[in-house]
Amino acid sequence: MEKEILIFGHKNPDTDSICSSIVKERLNEKNGYNNSKAVRLGNINQETQYVLDYIGIEAPELIEKVEEDQKVILVDHNEFSQSVTGIENAKIIEVVDHHRIANFETLDPLYYTARPYGCTATILFQDFKAKEFEIDKEEAILMASAIISDTLLLKSPTTTKHDKKALEELGKIAKINIEEYGLEMLKAGTNLDDFTAEELINIDAKSLDKNGNKFVIAQVNTVDISSVLKRQEVLEGAIQNAINENGLDLFVLAITDILNSNSELIVLGNKSNAVEKAFNKKLENNRVFLEGVVSRKKQLLPDIDKNM
Amino acid sequence: MEKEILIFGHKNPDTDSICSSIVKERLNEKNGYNNSKAVRLGNINQETQYVLDYIGIEAPELIEKVEEDQKVILVDHNEFSQSVTGIENAKIIEVVDHHRIANFETLDPLYYTARPYGCTATILFQDFKAKEFEIDKEEAILMASAIISDTLLLKSPTTTKHDKKALEELGKIAKINIEEYGLEMLKAGTNLDDFTAEELINIDAKSLDKNGNKFVIAQVNTVDISSVLKRQEVLEGAIQNAINENGLDLFVLAITDILNSNSELIVLGNKSNAVEKAFNKKLENNRVFLEGVVSRKKQLLPDIDKNM
Repeated sequence: MEKEILIFGHKNPDTDSICSSIVKERLNEKNGYNNSKAVRLGNINQETQYVLDYIGIEAPELIEKVEEDQKVILVDHNEFSQSVTGIENAKIIEVVDHHRIANFETLDPLYYTARPYGCTATILFQDFKAKEFEIDKEEAILMASAIISDTLLLKSPTTTKHDKKALEELGKIAKINIEEYGLEMLKAGTNLDDFTAEELINIDAKSLDKNGNKFVIAQVNTVDISSVLKRQEVLEGAIQNAINENGLDLFVLAITDILNSNSELIVLGNKSNAVEKAFNKKLENNRVFLEGVVSRKKQLLPDIDKNM
Repeated sequence: MEKEILIFGHKNPDTDSICSSIVKERLNEKNGYNNSKAVRLGNINQETQYVLDYIGIEAPELIEKVEEDQKVILVDHNEFSQSVTGIENAKIIEVVDHHRIANFETLDPLYYTARPYGCTATILFQDFKAKEFEIDKEEAILMASAIISDTLLLKSPTTTKHDKKALEELGKIAKINIEEYGLEMLKAGTNLDDFTAEELINIDAKSLDKNGNKFVIAQVNTVDISSVLKRQEVLEGAIQNAINENGLDLFVLAITDILNSNSELIVLGNKSNAVEKAFNKKLENNRVFLEGVVSRKKQLLPDIDKNM
């Protein structure tokens, strides 16, 4: 038998990365491909654990790296810096993603389906519809949870009409109250007390590269920004360690208030001025408050990247 | 009114690049987007001119470069080195392509539909079907011609079942005999007598970049390889000029016999050994004959790229 094709989302997996991997495996099965398997590149966060527990399924298997020529399917990411160790020599046969494309290349033609939607699961939902596959309750909850997570219950500016339509229909199939279920799920991900400073800055950290300038934009969700800022000093210590260890030029930690849709950034590194230029605001005590900013992809990354 | 969105294929446009640009403009119109326009990045070759004359339509307008933030849709290519001058600062909103992905990046999420098929037009054909749009006779001939060109009448190893299915259905809609029409069209593109050596090596030349090593793989179709080789000396002069002017490390000219499905390569440059390693054959008189090789994308590029 041929080796299994591995399906995975990005490092520091979020709910979309985990749920879309699982759903993509099921979609492949419905398409008649039984030799693909969802795996994950990191720990399950508390929000995602809430979803898995709600349904009653196990997390996909953890992998550390892939062998040369391993066939892989990437969901919810494409940048090699966010992918598995060994990705450069793997055989990428398909990508399903909703991010910009960068630091990505292949030797051979492949399937690549990117849409500028709020969530990867919305693209998968459209694939179910296009092929007229039935969506079962588990699949509906998996996709709905991914959409709720990525769009913060449709409040993020990354939200599109496609995400809204998908979430509405998935809620009906799953027979859940989207608002109630969604708030419970999001809140489950905001309990940051059990994390060390080092763990906290790595809960959802994206590694990026602009012309050799390495930077990280990390994000945590909370219902109370000030409770996180109480730990600013130790968080800065952890961030400085990450900068030293990985030769980073910039580390941004976005602390996002999911109820009021604002973010406070803690910013360190020799390229801190990229953030000041991006938002035309001075850092004070290494911090800046950004009203109405909740989306890393749409409201943080493009402007910071441009000024790196 | 907002500025028009420009749709174009690669430099040195082939039949797929031109026909798919025109068809994509029409698809956008059917989808309700009336502000996009097919353009082209270079001269129409004789094969494509045969198609346009057959239908009785004009070639898209020629453009030299794009302004900053110009919205563009790329068909049949993604590598910036094959695209329009200014592409780095354009706003790429969509890509429809059937090539590997490399030397490509965006700041923002976008629509990207890549499929590992023989031809871009096959992907567009599937889009017509998915949306249940009617295909008219002109559109059918445009898409059929692109498929015939890219797959050499379904004989190239890049041909997939999707291309076969599309071409069969398009032939019926267009009410043409695919074999007869296709051979006439392909032969129209093999008359190389009117080209200077410099023109000939640029008819269908792809510029590539591997870790800063610049190389070109050019291809011409013929029904008689020996007639082209009679001009080897002047062709080599033109190739050497191209190498000097553009700082190339390698220039490969593939002379492809479309009737017998073989290719003879003329190879110059300080990285010529990449070709020798790729095919495990020694160059003799700067040439190597490759039996059964007709596809740049599938049979030339990956192995040469790997050895650059």
